[in-house]
Amino acid sequence: MKFRVRNLDMALGDVRILMNAEDAEKYGIWTNSRVRVSTDGKSIVAIVSITSGDIIKKGEIGLFSEASRSLEVGDGSYVYVKGVEAPSSVKYLKNKLRGEELSEEEIFNLINDIKEGLVSDAELAAFVTALEFHGMSTDEIVSLTRAMAEAGNKLEFGDITVFDKHGIGGVPGTSKDTLIIVPIVSEAGLHIPKTSTRAITSPSGTVDTMEVLAPVDLTAEEIVETCLKVKGTIAWTKTANISPVDDILISRVEFPLSLDPEPLMFASILSKKLAASVRNLVLDIPTGEEAKVETVKEATEMANKFREIGSRLGINIEVAISYGGQPVGRAIGPALEAKEALICLITGGKCSRSIVEKAVSIAGLLLEMGGVAPPGKGEAAAWHILESGRAYERMKMIIREQGGDPDIKPEDIEIGQYKYSVKSQVEGFVTAVSNRAFVEIARAAGAPRDSGAGIYLYVKRGDKVSIGDTLYDIYSSSETRLEEAIKIASSRKPIAVEGMILKVVRDKFILE
Amino acid sequence: MKFRVRNLDMALGDVRILMNAEDAEKYGIWTNSRVRVSTDGKSIVAIVSITSGDIIKKGEIGLFSEASRSLEVGDGSYVYVKGVEAPSSVKYLKNKLRGEELSEEEIFNLINDIKEGLVSDAELAAFVTALEFHGMSTDEIVSLTRAMAEAGNKLEFGDITVFDKHGIGGVPGTSKDTLIIVPIVSEAGLHIPKTSTRAITSPSGTVDTMEVLAPVDLTAEEIVETCLKVKGTIAWTKTANISPVDDILISRVEFPLSLDPEPLMFASILSKKLAASVRNLVLDIPTGEEAKVETVKEATEMANKFREIGSRLGINIEVAISYGGQPVGRAIGPALEAKEALICLITGGKCSRSIVEKAVSIAGLLLEMGGVAPPGKGEAAAWHILESGRAYERMKMIIREQGGDPDIKPEDIEIGQYKYSVKSQVEGFVTAVSNRAFVEIARAAGAPRDSGAGIYLYVKRGDKVSIGDTLYDIYSSSETRLEEAIKIASSRKPIAVEGMILKVVRDKFILE
Repeated sequence: MKFRVRNLDMALGDVRILMNAEDAEKYGIWTNSRVRVSTDGKSIVAIVSITSGDIIKKGEIGLFSEASRSLEVGDGSYVYVKGVEAPSSVKYLKNKLRGEELSEEEIFNLINDIKEGLVSDAELAAFVTALEFHGMSTDEIVSLTRAMAEAGNKLEFGDITVFDKHGIGGVPGTSKDTLIIVPIVSEAGLHIPKTSTRAITSPSGTVDTMEVLAPVDLTAEEIVETCLKVKGTIAWTKTANISPVDDILISRVEFPLSLDPEPLMFASILSKKLAASVRNLVLDIPTGEEAKVETVKEATEMANKFREIGSRLGINIEVAISYGGQPVGRAIGPALEAKEALICLITGGKCSRSIVEKAVSIAGLLLEMGGVAPPGKGEAAAWHILESGRAYERMKMIIREQGGDPDIKPEDIEIGQYKYSVKSQVEGFVTAVSNRAFVEIARAAGAPRDSGAGIYLYVKRGDKVSIGDTLYDIYSSSETRLEEAIKIASSRKPIAVEGMILKVVRDKFILE
Repeated sequence: MKFRVRNLDMALGDVRILMNAEDAEKYGIWTNSRVRVSTDGKSIVAIVSITSGDIIKKGEIGLFSEASRSLEVGDGSYVYVKGVEAPSSVKYLKNKLRGEELSEEEIFNLINDIKEGLVSDAELAAFVTALEFHGMSTDEIVSLTRAMAEAGNKLEFGDITVFDKHGIGGVPGTSKDTLIIVPIVSEAGLHIPKTSTRAITSPSGTVDTMEVLAPVDLTAEEIVETCLKVKGTIAWTKTANISPVDDILISRVEFPLSLDPEPLMFASILSKKLAASVRNLVLDIPTGEEAKVETVKEATEMANKFREIGSRLGINIEVAISYGGQPVGRAIGPALEAKEALICLITGGKCSRSIVEKAVSIAGLLLEMGGVAPPGKGEAAAWHILESGRAYERMKMIIREQGGDPDIKPEDIEIGQYKYSVKSQVEGFVTAVSNRAFVEIARAAGAPRDSGAGIYLYVKRGDKVSIGDTLYDIYSSSETRLEEAIKIASSRKPIAVEGMILKVVRDKFILE
């Protein structure tokens, strides 16, 4: 079949062409099936979209930008189109659907084709769904992690041993710990090029929070350069093109479908570490009510699996199972969290205990791993670096190196101008602080895109409160979004205040 | 967020808008997530595509045709865009992913939203994949069937009782049986408005074969009219808008991903029958090597399930488990099968035994169900109608009524002008005739879109052949496609010829 070309100047993320519905019917071509499009010299395989509109008439074919770029053919030229089988990687994907184990070669093939835009959204969704059901063997996860790491840039540090920390997320307020850990660890002499994605479902990711203090859109070369100069950096994986297939899977399938299969969680985190040449990693698994992991038993199983996969990849992993049953620190949202971290650095740790203790113990583990503190003395060494103000000085160097203002003060940080205080209507003790409700409220207020939006908590579990005490403030840069957030706050009631006697069971009426 | 509109005049099958990548990044909007787009008076929820090209600049939003149609807003006007949750039906779809049972209301809701284009390809793929894993309860399948039937047109026949036959497919050569059954049954006085989809993975579907003799693109009204006039019709579900969601699922997901979960097979077949007001159905389950169902035990289980679901829907189902271990009749492909059926009708059954016996026994079951033949006498009655030439006369009426030429002769039917004969290179007996290999060869030759493409078999299982005997001919209207088909034929070897002694096991060396 011969078709007249129209270039559509529209990039949709995969290699795709557009056909008229009547032509498609006539030639037996379906939405999402494959065709080979050939000119005299070039030939590509593309995924088909079908239109009933007038933009592509009978006898015409529309090339979306990815297809245009590869074929380099002008409007009005003719190309040959032929229905073909999907690339073999799609067969591997279908084998996974049937529960088969994939070989290393098959996984590399598949990840490469996903990167090249040869796999449709429907196929990606089926694959991720299959992983949710069938899981993957350790061998498969190791191959997947390697394939994802190799699909993007690598950070090369030569002989230098590279350290890192990573949290599995799920608890609001944790994004800021990195802003305290990285300067402590680099000040102690270890190289820590921390890279991270933006928040996906949380009110702030590490780079969203760091961005309040300095640009995070560094290239791979800039990350290496910064890290060689000041030993630490906090940068965005996307501009550095680190593990780009992870971005594709998250943005096209995992986020819109709220799917997060375990094999992809391992591969997502560890592919980034592998690409960044990390050899020693402290992994934080926040555990507790409404965290991703609710019990220490589960967390331990996950920790062992991370360590096993890590050892196969040449990454030495130590795991910190931290308390994640309520938000960490008092601030939630990019600007509020950046401010809390900056205060912590400037005051040498005089801030919310939950955040400073967590940061210092994780930093301590890294110092011990790196041999810059003796076993059992890492935490004290980290405390010392923080208290002495040296961590703050190091953070200023990192901020300057990434292009931010090193003299930024906590009061310079812009918080949303609209604020609402939620006060207690009863007297009693705080018996619960809901992670999920605070995530919802902060996101409704605009976090993370509105960096000034978020929550500041005045009370945590176990605190005593009186009638009229402020429980928390909600901030937003938009009045409408603040109202939206207040609405959710009043229905979700994220903080429970109860008398110490939670329930009275009278003797006479006990039936059991 | 306020955006300037560009209407894109491109219908992609769902309600979709196009955003610039930078805007999407800024506002935290992802591919395949949902936004509400509002004008002063109107408001829709749309799925997002993101482009890095120039066609949609920052501050602009592109409306694909489905969105344009609903909003009716001119180029350059402004609309408000806001990220929103997916419609609640998408939540039900995710519940199914977790293995939950869906209520009738949830299923109706979901099917309606699929019809309206509110569900993305990725979500559809995840849903179909989930059905593959979790299956569905009988209650769910019944609701799904009802919902799919109600999503399209209904054929209304008032007080008239409607009969039908349907095969589950999977064996090449079966499409033609309907062309013999329908005229026998209607000649006997029963109403049989047979509707069908085109071939999906086979070399010819019932309507592809019928189309060689008469148009099949009838509207729902035309099907009813034809059937009331001549009692039988063979028409395409698509132009009649019967069970359109079945088309959506097949074309966007099931076919491109080669997924065919059991609940959808039941719902696909029975929703069409329900929409056509069928009250009595004979279902054909071809069973044997390389058929969809390989053993009589499996076929019986499937038959019972069909009968159970049918009784819940008010459809009385009898099942014929037929032999499907090799192609039925001798012809494969639209024109060749239409010719074989026409010869069978004209000669009163003097054609390949396998096709005529199958057709007559299924017709016989229908005659008994309809009370126009006494129990046990249906097959004889059907034979009589066929042998007497009355079935042929009835078929001429049907062809005329659908707009075809009733005087068409077998020799008028155009077969592909390129032909290749495959001859036996050994002497022996035919021990196997592969369904799957013949499907592949016929499709490579161009069937079903090239209606003249296909296969004519000279031998079947058990036949004795000599060296040089023709085993089968391959036909095509294209020389290149014929070569392609020959290539597959020589590697797949669809017919096995062996001596009667298949293996010699000598006494001395038997070890077990």
